[in-house]
Amino acid sequence: MSEEVIIGRNSVAEVIKSGRSINKVLVAKGDRQGSLKQIVGQALKKGLLVQEVDHAKLDSLAEGQNHQGIIAYAAPIQFVDVAQMLQNAANKGEQAFLVLLDELEDPHNVGAIIRTADGAGCHGLLLPKRRTAPISSTVAKISSGAVEYVPIAQIGNVSQTIKSLKKQGVWVVGADMDGEKNYYDADLTGPIVVVVGNEGQGLSRLIKENCDILVKIPMKGHMTSLNASVACSLLLYEVCRQRELK
Amino acid sequence: MSEEVIIGRNSVAEVIKSGRSINKVLVAKGDRQGSLKQIVGQALKKGLLVQEVDHAKLDSLAEGQNHQGIIAYAAPIQFVDVAQMLQNAANKGEQAFLVLLDELEDPHNVGAIIRTADGAGCHGLLLPKRRTAPISSTVAKISSGAVEYVPIAQIGNVSQTIKSLKKQGVWVVGADMDGEKNYYDADLTGPIVVVVGNEGQGLSRLIKENCDILVKIPMKGHMTSLNASVACSLLLYEVCRQRELK
Repeated sequence: MSEEVIIGRNSVAEVIKSGRSINKVLVAKGDRQGSLKQIVGQALKKGLLVQEVDHAKLDSLAEGQNHQGIIAYAAPIQFVDVAQMLQNAANKGEQAFLVLLDELEDPHNVGAIIRTADGAGCHGLLLPKRRTAPISSTVAKISSGAVEYVPIAQIGNVSQTIKSLKKQGVWVVGADMDGEKNYYDADLTGPIVVVVGNEGQGLSRLIKENCDILVKIPMKGHMTSLNASVACSLLLYEVCRQRELK
Repeated sequence: MSEEVIIGRNSVAEVIKSGRSINKVLVAKGDRQGSLKQIVGQALKKGLLVQEVDHAKLDSLAEGQNHQGIIAYAAPIQFVDVAQMLQNAANKGEQAFLVLLDELEDPHNVGAIIRTADGAGCHGLLLPKRRTAPISSTVAKISSGAVEYVPIAQIGNVSQTIKSLKKQGVWVVGADMDGEKNYYDADLTGPIVVVVGNEGQGLSRLIKENCDILVKIPMKGHMTSLNASVACSLLLYEVCRQRELK
């Protein structure tokens, strides 16, 4: 069975808390202080296998990432169906709140968005199988471990997924420089999927045509766009803000 | 005279547009396509010295950063006084809108915030001389060149700067997990400085005591905080949103 390498203190702490199946935890030999001590304590309390290894061994396993003295091997993330996400929302008595990332290439952006999706209370993240940064250990680390909690669906054809969501009454809101309204002037209170595109090119024409509405972020200075994770986060928290007002 | 290395297409394009003094532009030998061709065209039009060099030479100058075939040498960024920022706001007939980053360590966060500060229409960014990521070529690159447009002040003592701003009628809003209000429930329409702290620890106790109000970002999932550049950006665009409503 394939397994996933989880790197760094936050990520390992979250995977232990989450209850995901963990094969073993590797920790650097020597004095353990602060959060490292706590995390190892949690691992032992859960009956996990904890092995001491040389710092150099962790360096080689982490392949250049900052492991902060700890690495874990866990079962791969379990993907969730989009139908299940909608069901979860309904079970909570909440309007569906999804986010779809199309062709986002930078794992830093994907990771930061997963963290924001958790914060804003999204029911799930939709990632195309192709042309979008996979859920790597970098994504997991940048997400600060939020990848353990936000349900993630792997989708095939993006346009078809959008059409299917529309049929189920979900409002499709695309982020686009040429959007017809500022994002905070659009009504984002119903069942919704926020769609964000590639860092450089934005959403493809086909995806744009499939959106119910395109919203823009006002740009008051010289730049024409924001960092993709910032742009997506503004939209997600605007949904959150508007729903609290209702 | 010291000079600054500007790395990558967006950053070099923006420094050329901005009118900052440029000593020379180095471009990779060979076919030039797309934006690289355009940027070199702009440089030549402005009468700048453009030299062709080997790709390997650029690799060594970029020290691991992705130069995308182009590097420029420019005069260092000119810092601006806080008083000048307030004057600029007054000249535009706008309420002052500043952002202060205290002890932010990650250049990715500082760069993304500068880009957002430009987008949201901030009059300036305040950076302590110590313990905050300096305006490096990484910061400039992540800012997508926005560093050319957002006035930046280097400040000494953060608490004293805050006190001085308060005396001048600027409302000091700190971002804090234990804030008394959600950021979107606070009135952010007056003259304002948004204060954001370190990625791990947040604002220091002393800085918090000096804020007029502490605002929090609601966290609806398992995480207790967001990426620092995301959190700061939410506050900056909320200022922008509220001011448009008025």
